[in-house]
Amino acid sequence: MNVTFRGRAQNFRTVAFDAAKNSVLLIEQRLLPHEFKIIATKNFRETAMAIREMIVRGAGAIGATAAYGLAQGAFEFRGHDLKKFSAHVGTVYQALKAARPTAVDPVNAMNDVRHQMKRGKTAAEKQSLALAAAEEFANEDVRHCEAIGRHGAKLIRNGMKILTHCNAGWLAFVDIGTATAPMFAAQAQGKKFHVFCDETRPRSQGATLTAWELAQQKISHQIIADNAAGHLMQRGEIDLVIVGSDRTLGRTGEVTNKIGTYTKAVLAARHKIPFYVAIPLSTIDWNLKRGFDIPIEERDESEVLGAWGSNSRVAREYVRVANPSSGARNPGFDVTPPELVTGIITPVGIFKPKELWNRRHELGFAG
Amino acid sequence: MNVTFRGRAQNFRTVAFDAAKNSVLLIEQRLLPHEFKIIATKNFRETAMAIREMIVRGAGAIGATAAYGLAQGAFEFRGHDLKKFSAHVGTVYQALKAARPTAVDPVNAMNDVRHQMKRGKTAAEKQSLALAAAEEFANEDVRHCEAIGRHGAKLIRNGMKILTHCNAGWLAFVDIGTATAPMFAAQAQGKKFHVFCDETRPRSQGATLTAWELAQQKISHQIIADNAAGHLMQRGEIDLVIVGSDRTLGRTGEVTNKIGTYTKAVLAARHKIPFYVAIPLSTIDWNLKRGFDIPIEERDESEVLGAWGSNSRVAREYVRVANPSSGARNPGFDVTPPELVTGIITPVGIFKPKELWNRRHELGFAG
Repeated sequence: MNVTFRGRAQNFRTVAFDAAKNSVLLIEQRLLPHEFKIIATKNFRETAMAIREMIVRGAGAIGATAAYGLAQGAFEFRGHDLKKFSAHVGTVYQALKAARPTAVDPVNAMNDVRHQMKRGKTAAEKQSLALAAAEEFANEDVRHCEAIGRHGAKLIRNGMKILTHCNAGWLAFVDIGTATAPMFAAQAQGKKFHVFCDETRPRSQGATLTAWELAQQKISHQIIADNAAGHLMQRGEIDLVIVGSDRTLGRTGEVTNKIGTYTKAVLAARHKIPFYVAIPLSTIDWNLKRGFDIPIEERDESEVLGAWGSNSRVAREYVRVANPSSGARNPGFDVTPPELVTGIITPVGIFKPKELWNRRHELGFAG
Repeated sequence: MNVTFRGRAQNFRTVAFDAAKNSVLLIEQRLLPHEFKIIATKNFRETAMAIREMIVRGAGAIGATAAYGLAQGAFEFRGHDLKKFSAHVGTVYQALKAARPTAVDPVNAMNDVRHQMKRGKTAAEKQSLALAAAEEFANEDVRHCEAIGRHGAKLIRNGMKILTHCNAGWLAFVDIGTATAPMFAAQAQGKKFHVFCDETRPRSQGATLTAWELAQQKISHQIIADNAAGHLMQRGEIDLVIVGSDRTLGRTGEVTNKIGTYTKAVLAARHKIPFYVAIPLSTIDWNLKRGFDIPIEERDESEVLGAWGSNSRVAREYVRVANPSSGARNPGFDVTPPELVTGIITPVGIFKPKELWNRRHELGFAG
């Protein structure tokens, strides 16, 4: 996407590869929105650390990072012994997998790369095939987001005001993003619209990452407190809601996403405002039978009790906002039932949440 | 209320008067929750400044401050000339009124005091009557909050989990508060319950003031992000909602309160959780005919774009959280329609919102 960097607009992906230097290139997301910086990892261990330390985050983005990291690690091998090469690749795989142990995307991406490597007969061939497979994984992530944009852009009409929650933008993927994809596509079609970004406390991804992306893309937008969307809907100031999802149940159409998503869906239903969820196929869970069984992560209370920010004195620091002797509850996600969701925007089309199961073969169900 | 100060629990009102020193005593609310400090104003001009600078805020609290300030100003007069005394009191009145020009409570309170002063024949008599009237105003504020507590405590059963939004606690009144009054009364009756305080972005009054009050009163509580209440309701973790109101329409039952209140009412209705609004009679607006006509203050965007807090290096500072090149919308209040409100807790009893007009004579309607 376009980022204005060192005074001029340049094109960046969240994750890329520098073959000449055998480096994975990553946007240092922990510094955003206050500083834009690209880091280049020197070896697969640095790449694993970048995943662990959340320099890169988001399903598609860490999948691609792990895929590139596996290719990078493969290229670090010097020699011709295929047995030693294979052991080395196993070490790389485990290091990258262990960087974010609960995430499924890095594992799926690396399995893909390893599968492609089998076609090579020499270590050198396998190295080239690994990089080609990693590039293909990243390119497919981009194509899927483009397809989400193509389908979703039809929902956006000139003059609309759109609400989004949290960050399901290009920083969470290799490029384009999911919830933001229809916006970028509509903009490319010349449509004019305005986006309200929910701040998305406690981690403020809407105020920091989504707002930064929209600013880079020169899309008209304003940040609002999470408390304000209901009032704006009441006054007719929101026409459409588009959010992402971390896990959507293929069997029931229930949508897991950042805490607060359910609240926006309830409000949208009351005001008869269309509520759409944009997802890549990899986030569909075909196994779970009910949303109540989705484990909801309880995160550290410090997130609720304070905020990270900057001012003229400090680049970035944590301040305690809340009463010092009080504690907090901090559920990280919630589950939105299918009756509140107007449609699920996927790379292969827009479906009613209850349709997912019937269309499962188009949607990549492998069962 | 009880405040643990300098190591021991002491009893404080938000606003009080030191007759020996002719001083208004105020909790310096801008320092809370990080520091507890009582300030004593030396003269009526300092009292006016304390209102203007928001050392004291909240409807009942600024009403009582202005009443005491008028008495304080009257005592500053030296002499016996009634004409000069009257001109002096007029100056005091205007200074205190101008400190918060849009608020109605200081004016009502001071009119009350001036009315009582008429019974005095000498300046000295009028001075004494002014102080007695100010004390009576403050005591009546406390009695009204006590009565709200008495009625509202019946709604609280052992083991309940209660949600509240923003601060309608004792810091906004002379003592006890409105939304918090049922909690304090239930606690005094030996009931055990747990309170979730909505953080209440953008100004975080829930995380700072309400949480601080509940901590001082040793009431079990946790702060939650404004995004989290919907999820907790879904999981059956909230049994009752009690909030305050800045303006309730007597003719329609519509409730104006801090931004986000409407959202909580919508969620509560969906989950069939009782939603109550606790109000003093002074906040009932008997004139307006529809909530849509209530002007909704659009506040400064800096509130949404950052946060005030402290850490080991700074006592209190503002940090910018949001993307530096993005702006914000910041509506300060919203309007909740009567069908979402289970009941209005007043000093004279609990009513359905639509009953207010029929019961208007009990509720202080003077039309």
